[in-house]
Amino acid sequence: MEAVMEHWLSKRAALSPDTLAVETAEGDSWTFIQLYDESVLFAKKLANYTDPKQHVGILSNNSLDMIIAFFACTYLEIPVVLLNTRLTNVEIKKQCESADVTLILTTNTLKEKAVSTAVSVNTFTEIHQSDPESVRITHTIKMDQLCTMMFTSGTTGTAKAVMHQFSNHWSSAIASALNLSLLPTDKWLACLPLFHIGGLSIILKGVIYGMPVYLLEKFDEQLVHKAIINNGVSIVSVVSVTCSRLLEKSGDEKYPESFRCMLLGGGPAPRSLLEKAKHKGVPIVQTYGMTETSSQIATLNANDAIRKNGSAGQALFSASLEIRKEGKQLPPMEIGEITVRGPMVTSGYYKREDANKAAFTDGWLSTGDLGYKDEEGFLYVVDRRSDLIISGGENIYPAEIEDCLLTMSAIAEAGVAGRPDSYWGQIPVAFVVKADSALTDNMVKEHCEKLLAPYKVPKQIYFVESLPRNATKKIQRHKLMDWIN
Amino acid sequence: MEAVMEHWLSKRAALSPDTLAVETAEGDSWTFIQLYDESVLFAKKLANYTDPKQHVGILSNNSLDMIIAFFACTYLEIPVVLLNTRLTNVEIKKQCESADVTLILTTNTLKEKAVSTAVSVNTFTEIHQSDPESVRITHTIKMDQLCTMMFTSGTTGTAKAVMHQFSNHWSSAIASALNLSLLPTDKWLACLPLFHIGGLSIILKGVIYGMPVYLLEKFDEQLVHKAIINNGVSIVSVVSVTCSRLLEKSGDEKYPESFRCMLLGGGPAPRSLLEKAKHKGVPIVQTYGMTETSSQIATLNANDAIRKNGSAGQALFSASLEIRKEGKQLPPMEIGEITVRGPMVTSGYYKREDANKAAFTDGWLSTGDLGYKDEEGFLYVVDRRSDLIISGGENIYPAEIEDCLLTMSAIAEAGVAGRPDSYWGQIPVAFVVKADSALTDNMVKEHCEKLLAPYKVPKQIYFVESLPRNATKKIQRHKLMDWIN
Repeated sequence: MEAVMEHWLSKRAALSPDTLAVETAEGDSWTFIQLYDESVLFAKKLANYTDPKQHVGILSNNSLDMIIAFFACTYLEIPVVLLNTRLTNVEIKKQCESADVTLILTTNTLKEKAVSTAVSVNTFTEIHQSDPESVRITHTIKMDQLCTMMFTSGTTGTAKAVMHQFSNHWSSAIASALNLSLLPTDKWLACLPLFHIGGLSIILKGVIYGMPVYLLEKFDEQLVHKAIINNGVSIVSVVSVTCSRLLEKSGDEKYPESFRCMLLGGGPAPRSLLEKAKHKGVPIVQTYGMTETSSQIATLNANDAIRKNGSAGQALFSASLEIRKEGKQLPPMEIGEITVRGPMVTSGYYKREDANKAAFTDGWLSTGDLGYKDEEGFLYVVDRRSDLIISGGENIYPAEIEDCLLTMSAIAEAGVAGRPDSYWGQIPVAFVVKADSALTDNMVKEHCEKLLAPYKVPKQIYFVESLPRNATKKIQRHKLMDWIN
Repeated sequence: MEAVMEHWLSKRAALSPDTLAVETAEGDSWTFIQLYDESVLFAKKLANYTDPKQHVGILSNNSLDMIIAFFACTYLEIPVVLLNTRLTNVEIKKQCESADVTLILTTNTLKEKAVSTAVSVNTFTEIHQSDPESVRITHTIKMDQLCTMMFTSGTTGTAKAVMHQFSNHWSSAIASALNLSLLPTDKWLACLPLFHIGGLSIILKGVIYGMPVYLLEKFDEQLVHKAIINNGVSIVSVVSVTCSRLLEKSGDEKYPESFRCMLLGGGPAPRSLLEKAKHKGVPIVQTYGMTETSSQIATLNANDAIRKNGSAGQALFSASLEIRKEGKQLPPMEIGEITVRGPMVTSGYYKREDANKAAFTDGWLSTGDLGYKDEEGFLYVVDRRSDLIISGGENIYPAEIEDCLLTMSAIAEAGVAGRPDSYWGQIPVAFVVKADSALTDNMVKEHCEKLLAPYKVPKQIYFVESLPRNATKKIQRHKLMDWIN
């Protein structure tokens, strides 16, 4: 029997119609019944523009419209491809092609960017202004059905679409609740982009738990701080950079007792940050997760926060985590690849049998990240996969930037690495062997700016005579890092 | 891919080793790591007496040994059949036969009763005293695997074994948490028998949530009251009778603020009881469920307790509930049969294709209970299926008692119905047409006492000339009830 549930938003609207669903810093607020009504209405209008089985892209910064468009698609059984607004036209176009996106829903501001992808585009406003169709919308959720896709890169540099079934999102929300508890007074602040799993998962938790979400268009330490102090926010998801800025901002001001969790993900946190938070009494909960695990898969319990400072905790209740080397499980304290299993783990990358074959073994996902477990089974992430650069919570894959550099005829060879940065964590820098001696660093940057999202553009170009390569001529990125560290 | 999780108790012992798992009124207490160690050790000893794929019966009153024996069986992948200690030897024997039980684990006190079933029997003590085998125990749970069976009767009078897969228990615990929230300070008092779903589900919730359970051998208003006042109990599961006794007991004494939920199940509650509780400020949460739904499937939110007094609430988040008549969904306010669907609903009765065919339609279970939904979708249970008698939270099926009566050659015809009782809710009474004029009511009762659990023995025998029957000669039980009401 295929697992079926009532549509989460329909059910929540029936159970908690008048409970606050989403509020914003501007003072707007919607209850669950309002969110439901708006989403269903939007679905009926959207039906004019879509066919069943189509894939719809959403290109938007955090907004209520974005949430409504997302739920509207689920009511039409249309999988949603969430597009990163920071990407260039060229990057978005590639992603739309590889995820079979045939329609992009976007904001008025981003329309121009979307149109350049050559996929058909409608703004939220256009949909709002059209007439609803008398279309049959679904009020059930088939748990095995594809709900969302989000892109992640890889060592090859080609972005891969991670598929999330409804069951992945459900299991993620449940596993998180079993870890963090579920208080009737909870309110979760979302300042991560909803086109990333860390953001979208908050919206889904809100609906599944019946919990209000405080939505910000983007991270702003002033607004987050104010919401914690004045608006009853009990949980906020952050990455190292934003956490650090918040601690800076709060100064000597104490957070209220009801603020119970600053959930810190998106890469390893510097020990100095954790110590600062501890000193200030800020309840940091360290977590480890990725797009492929539909957000958290390991989290450090509040009970263990001090005793295990620096650890990302243990795998959540329904999840499993092992450290492996060459397929074999390693004993405690030995560093190997982090492999995970659980109902929140993606079933795979869309139409990428090659990548799936490489990543999955008997239901276990090889994350490519390095870490070890201590004697009590607590995970310490030593490094995200060695070539990954994490800059302000965004993942940057050197191979993708190198591919871009090599499209310049004036470049013979290129290697990219992450340079430590006190503000962003890391920033990408490039090592270039010239094919044309007239090449300048500005020419390189300008080229990249046309093709790459700003956060991926190398902040420094080092011209070198040759690149360090191993016997098989693969670039040795760790040596590049040695050059600059 | 078959859904697999780490064994819940192993995982909980890793995540919360030193958290209190179970405590008793006698002051005994076990942490999760202790419960785990004891269960694994018991499993290794039990392996001497069992074969894989065997069905093991547990016949015990609430005790730590019973919990350990249950988890030990799960570590050996052995489904557990939970036997009601109030049943007679004859009843237990029948149940063992129909559930293919080949070994009963029991207490020293109940051994004699178990032995008479002709199935092999070992006491917990005997197992404890044997040597552990070096057997391989499983540390994973296959979610689709059979975990427990519990008996429920039916209109035919033959008890049917309800199968619970691990996924049913899991989904029940999760759905309950989404409804009641999950507080880090929760402690749930179990005074319902663990051989009933209402009891066992508390133990499983404890392990899944990482929540301490306060275990009583049986309901005792003095002990429950004391535990609520002094021992940090935040939730207690009760039925009407025990709820009423508790309210009586507590007198004018106020429960502490941390006591947040008296979960009231096991049949409709008299309005007078709900009003009394409201007056005393006791947080009653009305719920509807049955063995087939692995406990709660509908629950009245605390928010709606006053507004919807008398309702059992709405179907839990992952569950659905419809009122149907002749297969068709009825509009609000119309009374029909309560039908339910959800991941906590049993996959069926063991080896009872006939019963399964009758009970299930497209994944929906017909409960046989009558009720209606109001305009907002809140369930009002009008009556458990018309022939069901609920006495002190135990279900009694008239047909089973009638079958027993008819085995007396001095009885020509027999009909059984429930008589309202201020203490027990209902008690069973019998209407008998004599075949032998020498028959006395004591002879009838003695006969029943040999074959039926005490709570099923008719408390009054009415000798009558004939029984009311319809055209097809079926006894019209509602007419019997008219005779005595």
